[in-house]
Amino acid sequence: MAETNRQIVLDQLPQGKLGPEHFKLVEAERPTAGDGEVLVRTRYISLDAANRAWMQGATYRSALTSGQVMAGGALSEVVESRDPALQPGDLVWGDTGWQEYAAAPAKRLAKLPRLEPVTHLLSVYGVAGLTAYFGLLECGKPKPGETVVVSAAAGSVGSLVGQIAKLKGCRVVGVAGGEEKGKWLVDELGFDAAIDYKAGNLRGQLKETCPAGVDVYFDNTGGDILEAMLFAMNVHGRIACCGAVSQYDGAAPAHGPRGVPGLIVTKRLTLQGFVVMDFDDRREKALKDLQAWVAEGKLKVQEDILEGLENTPGALIGLLAGENRGKRMVKV
Amino acid sequence: MAETNRQIVLDQLPQGKLGPEHFKLVEAERPTAGDGEVLVRTRYISLDAANRAWMQGATYRSALTSGQVMAGGALSEVVESRDPALQPGDLVWGDTGWQEYAAAPAKRLAKLPRLEPVTHLLSVYGVAGLTAYFGLLECGKPKPGETVVVSAAAGSVGSLVGQIAKLKGCRVVGVAGGEEKGKWLVDELGFDAAIDYKAGNLRGQLKETCPAGVDVYFDNTGGDILEAMLFAMNVHGRIACCGAVSQYDGAAPAHGPRGVPGLIVTKRLTLQGFVVMDFDDRREKALKDLQAWVAEGKLKVQEDILEGLENTPGALIGLLAGENRGKRMVKV
Repeated sequence: MAETNRQIVLDQLPQGKLGPEHFKLVEAERPTAGDGEVLVRTRYISLDAANRAWMQGATYRSALTSGQVMAGGALSEVVESRDPALQPGDLVWGDTGWQEYAAAPAKRLAKLPRLEPVTHLLSVYGVAGLTAYFGLLECGKPKPGETVVVSAAAGSVGSLVGQIAKLKGCRVVGVAGGEEKGKWLVDELGFDAAIDYKAGNLRGQLKETCPAGVDVYFDNTGGDILEAMLFAMNVHGRIACCGAVSQYDGAAPAHGPRGVPGLIVTKRLTLQGFVVMDFDDRREKALKDLQAWVAEGKLKVQEDILEGLENTPGALIGLLAGENRGKRMVKV
Repeated sequence: MAETNRQIVLDQLPQGKLGPEHFKLVEAERPTAGDGEVLVRTRYISLDAANRAWMQGATYRSALTSGQVMAGGALSEVVESRDPALQPGDLVWGDTGWQEYAAAPAKRLAKLPRLEPVTHLLSVYGVAGLTAYFGLLECGKPKPGETVVVSAAAGSVGSLVGQIAKLKGCRVVGVAGGEEKGKWLVDELGFDAAIDYKAGNLRGQLKETCPAGVDVYFDNTGGDILEAMLFAMNVHGRIACCGAVSQYDGAAPAHGPRGVPGLIVTKRLTLQGFVVMDFDDRREKALKDLQAWVAEGKLKVQEDILEGLENTPGALIGLLAGENRGKRMVKV
C-alpha cells in the first residue's frame, strides 16, 4: 500500500460556468485515524447537481471554499477503525470528499448493508432513491389517475420519480433534454410521454402531453421549466421542490419565475421544499418499499459509472450539462 | 320607490393603473326577480384588492370584461323573493356587483344572521375574517413562540392575522406603508413591531424586528416584500399565499421573486396558496372562535366605511394605493 492519498482540490470557486480549471489533482499524505475516527478507502464517489450548488453559497450545508478538498458523498470501505461502532471491511456512506482515503469521525458515517450490486447503495437505495421516494410521496402526494410531471427526468432522481408515480397509478410525463432521452423514458422506463425542453415551446408540449393539466410536479430544475409548470398546474396542485439544476452552474439568477405568487394563490398550489434528511425517521419503510419494487422488476435502476478519481471533475461538469442517464458515480 | 337602478359599469379594462376613467355611472331599469330568484337592495359593498385582480384575467373566477356592471361582493337585503329559501328582510351576501339593486338566483346568495353592527358581517365575520383565520391557522400553522410576519398588515385581513397570531402566542411583526400605520399596529392592535416598506431597506428592518428569523409569513402583497421574506425565513418556515396586491394594479409582472425555488429547497419552505372557499366545511367553527374573541375584546375590528355608490370606484383606487385602515366598504 502506498502512503499517498490522491485528492481533487477545489482550486478556485467558479464565477460563471464550472470548468476543469477550477479543480486541481494533488497528492497528499495518507491520513491516519484519530481516537473515535476511522480511515476509509473511497470506492464510489456520488456525483450530484447539489455539489455545484454548494459552490454558490450556504445551502443546507455551509458553502465550499477554494483550496479545500472537493466535498461530496461517497461509498467507502473501512480500512482501520478506532471506534467500536465500525470494523475494517464495513461499507459506509458519508461526505468524505473527492479523495482516495479519508479519516473521519465514525459518528459522521452511516454503515451500509452488504448487497449486490454495491452501486445500488448510491442510487436507488441511496440519496437519489430516497429523494425520489419522499419527495414524490410526501410532498407531491399523488393520487391514482392524476398527472405527474418530473423534470430532469432522465437523471438519477427523476428516472425513479417517474417510475414510482407509475406504480401509484398516475399518468407520468418526463421533461428531459433531447429526443433520445425522451424515447428512453417512454420505451424503457414506461413513462406515458416525454417533453424535450431543448425543442422549445414548453407550454405547447405541456398542453399536448398533459391534456387534463398537471396535478403534481416534481421540480429538479427551477427556472423556465418551473415557470411553464406554474401555468400548467391544476387547482390544488402540488409542487415538490427538490432542486434547481438549471440555476446552479453560474451566478445566482436575478429573478424567479413569473406567476409567483399570483398563480399559487389563484390555483391554490402548494410548493414544498425538502431535503432527504428531513425524512430520516421513515427511512426503513422507504428502503423496504424500494427493495421490493426492484426485486419485483417494477423499478429499473439506471447507473452511469465512470472510472478514475482524476475524472471526477469532468463527471460533474458533464452531469450539469445533462450528459448522464440515471445515477452518475465515479469508481475510484 | 323609484323604478331605477344606479350601477357602476366597468367601462374599460385598465391596461396600467386603475383610474376613475375606467368606470361609468349609469342608470338602468330596476330588475325583477324571476322564478327561483330574489331581488335585493345593496346595503354595503365590500372593497377588496381581488376586485382589481379580476380585471387582469381569469383567477379563481372568470375575468371581468368591459361593459359589465362591476363585480364585487356586497351585503344586501332581500326586497322580493321568488324562492322559499329567502324572505323579504333577510340579509344576504353575494357577488351582486356595484349597483343599488340586483336580481339573483337565491342559491347563489348566502343568508346571514342579524347582528350588530351589521358591518361586521363584511369584516371580521365575512371574507376578511375567515381569510385571516384559515390562512394563518391552516396554512401558516403558527406555534407559540414563533415569529409571524404579515404584509398589508393594516388592511382588513392583515390587521386580523396579526391579532390572531398574538392570541396564539407568537411574536408578530406587521409590514405596512408609513410610520403612522406602523404605530397604530403596535399601539392599538398589539403587534410587537412594524416594518415600513416605504422606508426601504426591507432586509435590514427584518433583521432588526425579527432577530430569530421568521417562521410564518402571511403574504398579501407578493413582489419585493415576498422576495425579502424568502431570505428572512427560517428552515421549515411556512408562507401562506393570500394575495399579491403589489402586482394587481398594472400589467402582470414580468418576473417573480428571486430565491424561487432555490431558497424554498434549501430552507425546506412550504408556500401554500388558498382562497377562503376552500375551507367552507370548517366555517362554523371559525365564526364561533372569531365571535368569542371579539366578545372578549381580544380582537379589535377596524372598519373604514365610505358613503355613496358613486364613490365606489374611488374607494377601490384608494384601497390599491393603501389609503385604508381595516376593512373598507361603501354604504349604498
